[in-house]
Amino acid sequence: MVWNAWGIPSGHAPLPEQIRALLAQVFGVSGEPVARRDEGDVPLRDSALTAERLAELSSVVGADRVSIDHRDRLLHAGGKSTLDLLRRRADGPQDAPDAVVFPADHDEVLAVLARCAAARIAVVPFGGGTSVVGGVDPARGEFEAVVAVDLRRLDTLVEVDPVSHTATLGAGLTGPRAEALLGAHGLSLGHFPQSFEFASIGGFAATRSSGQASAGYGRFDDMIQRLRVATPSGTVELGRAPASAAGPDLRELFAGSEGTLGIVTEVTLRVHPIPETVAYQAWSFPDFATGADALRTVVQTGAAPTVLRLSDEAETGLNLARAGDIGGAPVTGCLAVTTFEGTAAHVRARAAEAGDLLAAAGGTALGEQPARDWEHGRFRAPYLRDALLDVGILCETLETATNWSNLSALKAAVTTALTESLTAQGTPALVMCHISHTYPTGASLYFTVVAKQADDPLDQWLRAKRAASEAILAGGGTITHHHAVGADHRPWLGAEIGEIGVRVLRAVKQAIDPVGILNPGKLIP
Amino acid sequence: MVWNAWGIPSGHAPLPEQIRALLAQVFGVSGEPVARRDEGDVPLRDSALTAERLAELSSVVGADRVSIDHRDRLLHAGGKSTLDLLRRRADGPQDAPDAVVFPADHDEVLAVLARCAAARIAVVPFGGGTSVVGGVDPARGEFEAVVAVDLRRLDTLVEVDPVSHTATLGAGLTGPRAEALLGAHGLSLGHFPQSFEFASIGGFAATRSSGQASAGYGRFDDMIQRLRVATPSGTVELGRAPASAAGPDLRELFAGSEGTLGIVTEVTLRVHPIPETVAYQAWSFPDFATGADALRTVVQTGAAPTVLRLSDEAETGLNLARAGDIGGAPVTGCLAVTTFEGTAAHVRARAAEAGDLLAAAGGTALGEQPARDWEHGRFRAPYLRDALLDVGILCETLETATNWSNLSALKAAVTTALTESLTAQGTPALVMCHISHTYPTGASLYFTVVAKQADDPLDQWLRAKRAASEAILAGGGTITHHHAVGADHRPWLGAEIGEIGVRVLRAVKQAIDPVGILNPGKLIP
Repeated sequence: MVWNAWGIPSGHAPLPEQIRALLAQVFGVSGEPVARRDEGDVPLRDSALTAERLAELSSVVGADRVSIDHRDRLLHAGGKSTLDLLRRRADGPQDAPDAVVFPADHDEVLAVLARCAAARIAVVPFGGGTSVVGGVDPARGEFEAVVAVDLRRLDTLVEVDPVSHTATLGAGLTGPRAEALLGAHGLSLGHFPQSFEFASIGGFAATRSSGQASAGYGRFDDMIQRLRVATPSGTVELGRAPASAAGPDLRELFAGSEGTLGIVTEVTLRVHPIPETVAYQAWSFPDFATGADALRTVVQTGAAPTVLRLSDEAETGLNLARAGDIGGAPVTGCLAVTTFEGTAAHVRARAAEAGDLLAAAGGTALGEQPARDWEHGRFRAPYLRDALLDVGILCETLETATNWSNLSALKAAVTTALTESLTAQGTPALVMCHISHTYPTGASLYFTVVAKQADDPLDQWLRAKRAASEAILAGGGTITHHHAVGADHRPWLGAEIGEIGVRVLRAVKQAIDPVGILNPGKLIP
Repeated sequence: MVWNAWGIPSGHAPLPEQIRALLAQVFGVSGEPVARRDEGDVPLRDSALTAERLAELSSVVGADRVSIDHRDRLLHAGGKSTLDLLRRRADGPQDAPDAVVFPADHDEVLAVLARCAAARIAVVPFGGGTSVVGGVDPARGEFEAVVAVDLRRLDTLVEVDPVSHTATLGAGLTGPRAEALLGAHGLSLGHFPQSFEFASIGGFAATRSSGQASAGYGRFDDMIQRLRVATPSGTVELGRAPASAAGPDLRELFAGSEGTLGIVTEVTLRVHPIPETVAYQAWSFPDFATGADALRTVVQTGAAPTVLRLSDEAETGLNLARAGDIGGAPVTGCLAVTTFEGTAAHVRARAAEAGDLLAAAGGTALGEQPARDWEHGRFRAPYLRDALLDVGILCETLETATNWSNLSALKAAVTTALTESLTAQGTPALVMCHISHTYPTGASLYFTVVAKQADDPLDQWLRAKRAASEAILAGGGTITHHHAVGADHRPWLGAEIGEIGVRVLRAVKQAIDPVGILNPGKLIP
């Protein structure tokens, strides 16, 4: 990925004319993009690692696998939240890790951790670098130096069990690379978060990622059968069977541990055959509440599609995510997208049952095209965010989840918190929302916020985010459904898990990482 | 439950004549039951609690809720493993807790724990008392006294959310009572382990129970949305949403913690409407491997029934579980049972898809009756075990789980270990097996072992169990799929979760229960 924006250069595109016109009308923004800095022009503070320390790290991974190169450091300077991107666009020096280390395998990761613990060097595990919560910030904590441990060389399909539908994947594999390797065996993982093109298998596990096909294939944590983790205390291998009653499920401590307890190096995952058939069906609902009830009925009946999502009126109207790529006729009301994957018989039966339920619940079938359009453009939104930031528009997302009975109230509370905060700051906002992950007992809410940038857009967003986070916790939601905690949600984790929960996390950290080198300032309050 | 056998007196029945004839033929056992001791004749060691300590406990829960009554102590003297039942049948004094405490609610449980921590009294949480792994043994650990904390008074349906399909249940509710309370709201939990009639909601959570409808409704840990736990350090409340990425899932530390980290007092669970329709279909497969492959295909296609199980040739032939109650025509090959629950449309679609797959995989449809017979007799097997023990037959079960590709090899290895161990002891065994819990990546294996009792049947079974446990771990299975760890599986937990896993459990225990009063000798190596 480029250092100061999402994705690869060929993905970047100027704002479509109709969006620029809308921005001018709603926010009074002219739409002329500001130039981004060239990476060579960005000053970094000098690496704090001595030649001796660098030699120690080189002795573990080889001299050509320890880099203090300007570009390597800049590319590991953080994730891709709007705060990150605003910081990259700001003048002045950028913070960055003091070196980037590229271990070859699990044993080298172990050795790097042992060396860093002995030398008191902080370690930030680095997969795809797509964190939107400050999860890969190069924080030094109490230490004088920090290295990013980039896992890209752990990129093999270690093992496939075609009978059991499991595969063991290296932590550094990106989504597309994992799918390609599995595809050669006729298999697929089916994990498609918006970060899919760049994020890594290890990152998915460490952050409890959830993909757009979660209704069909589950969250990433549901797919994990076995984890291999390198820690400063040695190797952890957990998960001997599809299910077990052998005490607490310690996999669930490492899933979501965000690099604070160890570095995930291999994950054994549930996979499935590349589907024989994929069916698409889009729906329109007169309003969000009706649509949400319809989705609920489908999930609670056990007829869930592979993809099941619903945009609210504002998102459907603006159709923001698609507008960059696709024209397409506007959909009135609220757009819902369903897809069905599997054997022909399974897809036929499931689509018929779900379709009957959605129609009975007030849905109007729109045919395949809007669902295919959604799928075609589904990884584009982060590029659009960059184009908006470039023209002086603030654009960010946040997400939560709650029970069905609380969904509308929480949606209203978060929307109010965001709009009130931004209006009070003199920058009225457009707040859109969709449901993209459904469960029998509830669903996620994913908000997109668009406003004119204030003079200090970092402070502007921090205030709005704080208001939203308080509204989420007061309103009974979780502080994050799939973005993870990182640095940005850390102030609210104590409210989520309680004082004893925090004490437990600290005790586990102390037992595994007594020096405290792993990802300082993240997750654990 | 009665003190020295499973269940209630009205459930006890002598062995049917055809079983007695079979036992005489196979094992040379005459079939005359030995008399069981009357509970009044059983000496217990004196309660180690002083009047002062009893007064302290009484000050928390009331004097009439602290019992050192002979019968109360005897009824809390342990669980219902075959080892337990053999110990109850042995002469001599029985071990028992020094008192039984009956707190009224969460706050009283908290106060009891605080008082016991201050006074250094061990605490065994006690729900239904159905543990088959020594999970409620009245072990004192390093302390001079132990109390059983019986949760039966935490027996309310605290809250129902009919929209979200969740319900909050008191930990002391038994399976039937929970179903009755939910049934008044048109809801059901659908958790039917063999212990259903007596075991409790809190026990299901603390042991990661799995019920016979797990293919449809999931394991009990899958159903848990929120846990409330009383600990010596205070209250833990975990689970704010249907799913979350807010760090490690700490619910998964308390699920399966078997009373070593706290006492579960309330559980918020996913429930579902009482099904409109239930369909039954039994199948015969020519052999176990063919049947297992058929089950695998159904689960991996996403067409899983609500109940999905397969008995091997030996179990099908003996039809042990049903023989006590039902005649019925013998089924050749391997019997599989499927049931389908839900709306009429859902059941119709699912049964058709699964039926097509099972037939294509070599199954012969047997109609409804064998499936209904199985359901009718499904809670009877433990009573049959008592009748067998009474006539000098050893009968016990054990279970594991593994991936589909390893299932036949593990089944063979465990069967061999059991038969070789018992044959070497001069008591050749009949070993039967079934699959009762299926997942996309694998399944459980549940073994029933029948042999003539040796002179020291406790030692006889401990040897056989050790051989089976070693075979399970060497063969890649989990030491327990749904029976939990307790005291009996504790020697093998270290091999299951590794040295760092054990260190993590100890660190968590130390953080929450620093005095170490909670359920000594269980779970944590």
